Amino acid sequence: MATDKQERRQKFEGVFAKLRDDLVDRLKGENMPPEAVEWYRRNLDFNVPGGKLNRGMSVVDSVEILRGRKLTEDEYFKAALLGWCIELLQAFFLVSDDMMDHSITRRGQPCWYRVEGVGLIAINDAFMLEGAIYLLLKTHFREEPYYVHLLELFHDTTFQTEMGQLVDLITAPEDRIDLSQFSLKKHAFIVQYKTAYYSFYLSVALAMRVCGVPESYEVHGQTVRPYEVALSILLPLGEYFQIQDDFLDYAGTPEQIGKIGTDIVDNKCSWCVNVALAEATPEQRAVLDANYGRKDGEKEARVKEVYEAIGLRERYRVYEEEVKTRIDGLIASVPEPEGNVDGGVLKRGVFTAFLNKIYKRTK
Amino acid sequence: MATDKQERRQKFEGVFAKLRDDLVDRLKGENMPPEAVEWYRRNLDFNVPGGKLNRGMSVVDSVEILRGRKLTEDEYFKAALLGWCIELLQAFFLVSDDMMDHSITRRGQPCWYRVEGVGLIAINDAFMLEGAIYLLLKTHFREEPYYVHLLELFHDTTFQTEMGQLVDLITAPEDRIDLSQFSLKKHAFIVQYKTAYYSFYLSVALAMRVCGVPESYEVHGQTVRPYEVALSILLPLGEYFQIQDDFLDYAGTPEQIGKIGTDIVDNKCSWCVNVALAEATPEQRAVLDANYGRKDGEKEARVKEVYEAIGLRERYRVYEEEVKTRIDGLIASVPEPEGNVDGGVLKRGVFTAFLNKIYKRTK
Repeated sequence: MATDKQERRQKFEGVFAKLRDDLVDRLKGENMPPEAVEWYRRNLDFNVPGGKLNRGMSVVDSVEILRGRKLTEDEYFKAALLGWCIELLQAFFLVSDDMMDHSITRRGQPCWYRVEGVGLIAINDAFMLEGAIYLLLKTHFREEPYYVHLLELFHDTTFQTEMGQLVDLITAPEDRIDLSQFSLKKHAFIVQYKTAYYSFYLSVALAMRVCGVPESYEVHGQTVRPYEVALSILLPLGEYFQIQDDFLDYAGTPEQIGKIGTDIVDNKCSWCVNVALAEATPEQRAVLDANYGRKDGEKEARVKEVYEAIGLRERYRVYEEEVKTRIDGLIASVPEPEGNVDGGVLKRGVFTAFLNKIYKRTK
Repeated sequence: MATDKQERRQKFEGVFAKLRDDLVDRLKGENMPPEAVEWYRRNLDFNVPGGKLNRGMSVVDSVEILRGRKLTEDEYFKAALLGWCIELLQAFFLVSDDMMDHSITRRGQPCWYRVEGVGLIAINDAFMLEGAIYLLLKTHFREEPYYVHLLELFHDTTFQTEMGQLVDLITAPEDRIDLSQFSLKKHAFIVQYKTAYYSFYLSVALAMRVCGVPESYEVHGQTVRPYEVALSILLPLGEYFQIQDDFLDYAGTPEQIGKIGTDIVDNKCSWCVNVALAEATPEQRAVLDANYGRKDGEKEARVKEVYEAIGLRERYRVYEEEVKTRIDGLIASVPEPEGNVDGGVLKRGVFTAFLNKIYKRTK
């Protein structure tokens, strides 16, 4: 028997099939040669669905919470479409990141650029995944008063993510290990720009635009700037999520996280190594310098000894409690009007839905 | 003594320096680490100026023609800014195309991805060149009624160019030679999508938007749809330009074109080979199949013999006369109001300016 969660996912996936067919039909309509149309269909099918879909589905969740009622078919479709636009953006990033990182597999299949016959054409394929976003927005939202806001949200978020990716790439190249480049401050920048904007803020801000939430409004005589409020909660939430990810890469079992963590051998600018660098004695620092980022299990084990010696697990436990309390406080201070309002204002429920999915997750 | 043409170019280049500084300051303002800000500055300086700047400067030329008068400083700046947005789009394409084509040099310097320390980071750098377009448009055009049209022009054109690039990549891969994939029809698709939209239509359409040219208007009781008119002239003009390029790669001297043509050895889907394929006897076709796309001067010479035998030079001469007459006719039939109008309508002069730059060019 399908659970509610499975049903929600299947309904969401059904929208992708329609959007993919629409995109393919569009290219056919422009007389693109059939083998190129088929190539694009394969690009979409291979790279866009198949992930956890958390980012995309949270647009639908957020719109439902902001409206406080079941959505009409058209409202559902529009929210799901925006969700798939985030998944397209993510696919654009992943296809290209995998090339830049020389990754081998993604979501249990080879990376797109490693598929027979694809190779560097994957660069242009990534562009065409991004391009699909604007094609879909133009087709379905052109007449809406908030159309330009949707476009700007995607532009801004895309550029922020690319800024984060650039800092990550030049801070932690796989072939030039230099821990003096790392710091908790740089980690915070990378996480905010490379992950938090597109994985957390974007879905909520899109949902707010669709629900007609304006730039500012009054609640109990207080002026609320809802997009700034959303940012002030979702950026710390995104940071918390990524720090969890970094910690689970180190401390999670393969049963929990579905893979074996490789951040240490891959010279990643992870929260773990940055905490260790901030706390290390000169002797421990020497151990980190000599062993981090090497493709060698012995050296990886030496780094892990330092992590244990500085008490990384306890530090994470303390961090998680502290950040949970901080974000709870931020959410509680969002001004809300009385009663159930259908769109037009920001609601705390949007943030608690995110926080509940994340708090103390082990996978 | 600087000629008028040199002065125009210098003035246009001066705008880039300002835009680059603004972009760099923006990243600094977001607390991006200094080495990443410096990386981006270098990316912009290395990849954006340094080309012929025809595309960018033709926005300025077109705005001047549409207004029929000298521009104010602000009008000049806005037109030049849009021109630089086209040059940014071009830089985004060239940085990535050079990677996909394994090119070695570009504009007399190494390709960006081949610069020490860059490598595959060039993929993200290309994204950030594209991203600069939307940052600049948001900063300078957000309050204009035509802002959304500018965004859509860049979205549409970018996707069209990527469609053309995909067809080109899968039709003419360097390592799988199959002339049965080629045809004049496919050549026309590739040229229209990969070159004509962004190199010809985009600059004129941007200028028309800035000058307040509406979707349609009446001249002498006749309804004009100016963007469709512009497309109907600029797509053939773009095709003519690319066919010239293809022909000059074969027939131009190194003194004329500043390089030695390599389309034959690079397996390019050029107009020349497509004409030869359409005209070849079975024997000539066998020669083409056995010799095209090989890194071998002897084989290249065999292909050139076929080109001469089918009379390619005479065919080009006939094509050029025919297309010139056809485009002259299209331009003459654009309805124009009497007298000098300052913006708001399309003018024939925009197209003749382009055509005069191209007709019988030998470089």
